[in-house]
Amino acid sequence: MRTVEWDYDRNLVKMIDQRQLPSVFEIAEFTDYKDVATAIREMYVRGAPAIGAAAAFGMALAAQQSRAANRENLLRDLEEAAAVLRATRPTAVNLFWGIERMLRAATNEEIEQVDEVRQAILTEAQRLADEDVEINKRMATNGAALVKDGDTILHHCNTGSLATVDWGTALGVIRMANEQGKHIHVLLDETRPQLQGARLSAWECEQYNIPYTLIADNAAGHYMRIGQVDICFVGSDRTAANGDVANKIGTYKLGVVAKENGIPFFPVVPTSTVDLTLATGDDIPIEERDPAEITGLTFFGRPVAPTGARVGNPAFDVTPYKYVTGIVTEHSVVYPPFSLNLRRAVEEEQAKIRARRK
Amino acid sequence: MRTVEWDYDRNLVKMIDQRQLPSVFEIAEFTDYKDVATAIREMYVRGAPAIGAAAAFGMALAAQQSRAANRENLLRDLEEAAAVLRATRPTAVNLFWGIERMLRAATNEEIEQVDEVRQAILTEAQRLADEDVEINKRMATNGAALVKDGDTILHHCNTGSLATVDWGTALGVIRMANEQGKHIHVLLDETRPQLQGARLSAWECEQYNIPYTLIADNAAGHYMRIGQVDICFVGSDRTAANGDVANKIGTYKLGVVAKENGIPFFPVVPTSTVDLTLATGDDIPIEERDPAEITGLTFFGRPVAPTGARVGNPAFDVTPYKYVTGIVTEHSVVYPPFSLNLRRAVEEEQAKIRARRK
Repeated sequence: MRTVEWDYDRNLVKMIDQRQLPSVFEIAEFTDYKDVATAIREMYVRGAPAIGAAAAFGMALAAQQSRAANRENLLRDLEEAAAVLRATRPTAVNLFWGIERMLRAATNEEIEQVDEVRQAILTEAQRLADEDVEINKRMATNGAALVKDGDTILHHCNTGSLATVDWGTALGVIRMANEQGKHIHVLLDETRPQLQGARLSAWECEQYNIPYTLIADNAAGHYMRIGQVDICFVGSDRTAANGDVANKIGTYKLGVVAKENGIPFFPVVPTSTVDLTLATGDDIPIEERDPAEITGLTFFGRPVAPTGARVGNPAFDVTPYKYVTGIVTEHSVVYPPFSLNLRRAVEEEQAKIRARRK
Repeated sequence: MRTVEWDYDRNLVKMIDQRQLPSVFEIAEFTDYKDVATAIREMYVRGAPAIGAAAAFGMALAAQQSRAANRENLLRDLEEAAAVLRATRPTAVNLFWGIERMLRAATNEEIEQVDEVRQAILTEAQRLADEDVEINKRMATNGAALVKDGDTILHHCNTGSLATVDWGTALGVIRMANEQGKHIHVLLDETRPQLQGARLSAWECEQYNIPYTLIADNAAGHYMRIGQVDICFVGSDRTAANGDVANKIGTYKLGVVAKENGIPFFPVVPTSTVDLTLATGDDIPIEERDPAEITGLTFFGRPVAPTGARVGNPAFDVTPYKYVTGIVTEHSVVYPPFSLNLRRAVEEEQAKIRARRK
């Protein structure tokens, strides 16, 4: 089962409901793109690549739902669906990228019949999902070459199969290194507030037999300082043209402390997550989420905060490029100067895709 | 009600059971020093100064419990109690310091009758507790002078009344600045794993009408980077002679990121917490606590980690002196070189106490 996929027998979207992991493994089904949008917002599915695929399948669903009899009306319905889906989560660029790809597929002039347009969108969504898995494996191979036998790897949030269609980005690198027979150990940040490290990454590590230790986010610096971390791999929700990386809140502190201790720090970033339209990370919108993510915990059965506590809950932060050793992409491991080399990697990947289509 | 105090009517020790805050305010009573030891280990009471006072009252209780008919036998019983109390928590030096003070009081040759020795220990424990409050207010005055009107202050863990006998260390500074009419705002790290920031500091800020925002520990770096933090105050459980500061896990990351952003970083440290016998923080023992503090959470009613997840749970870390702007003590705000100036402050305070006794 992929994180998000199309059910061809029943014409609907299926997702693993990640909010219930690790205690319950449940598949949610969607026949309305608006429910897909809600599922993205409520984090049934999360992780930039998985959000991109979920939005793409949401668009395919919107095309199926539309009663339009011609392309013009279908496009109007699709623009409406796109607006609903775009409004779910502001930081991950793959959301917008996935939606744009579906709109482009819908406007392909070579296809005339409205039902063929519907089909073309679904085909494009499926292609996006399949490409994600293939891209992740290429990134994993590129990244795993950086891992030495015996390394202890620090990891933040969840960047595994569950954050992508399948295989994963940063955790995909770790999985590849493990499958290559390298003796590695992973320190998993639990990753407050949503605890994706504890709930999802620990669960994935158990599936793949990757040795791990779960730690409070606060402990990561301690392990770095006392020499127990060899390398860090993290994900990214949007990477600016200069190599600034927006990722799960807490990544910035890790980047700074890694650099201070001379520990290599590698975001693992499909080129679809690079936003060349943004010069720096300062322009990346940072999502502010529900205070209940902070106050909704219970600690040994007791509430953790006073009722009505005022809460700040930014879901992402920006790690400036100067803390980034290199960026692992499906193209290659990109090193500074990022402004030059990241653009080149992205453009070469885009050229490859264009060539393959022709 | 103080965090820990002696009930003179009933000859027992009372403590606020902090594990139940903020939802339940309950006073626990102790008639056996072994239960006081358990309460320290299980964190009914925590915070270096409060632990010191709890241990002192535990020793007073042990003296009352002892059936010894002469000083020699009483001292033997007290040494036994000291061993039990010392074994509770390894990092905070005040634990050992409080116990040593009680043993010293018990060996005062000017007192002969064994019941007078018992009384002398209780008197010394009460003096230690009273001094703690007075020292905290002097630290608060010294530290509040560093706070400017309009400052946003970052704070980690709980260092308020509940971490001391009364008033607090770092949060005591913040409370003093607030009472002086400075318009301040406090960002409270929730402080995983035990969530003292959410459970205790937020509760205290509400008692004192200090404007606060509760954040995940992961968010502190973000707020520092975007210029929303003006100064940091933290506590300390043991400070080495060179100014290295052992404090609640996560403090080290804050120190590094504060320095990186040019934000002043001040531990607030009574001289009783300075351990001049340790040259550097590398020799400070770091307590490893129960994995259940990491895995025992529920997030919206669901367990947060796979059953049997392997956990690392260091309770403290060491922030090397190079990240420390200055150390607020009851003597003064001590600036580098700490090796010289911290020793001087500690020795001058010790001389004052000796002079007062005579």
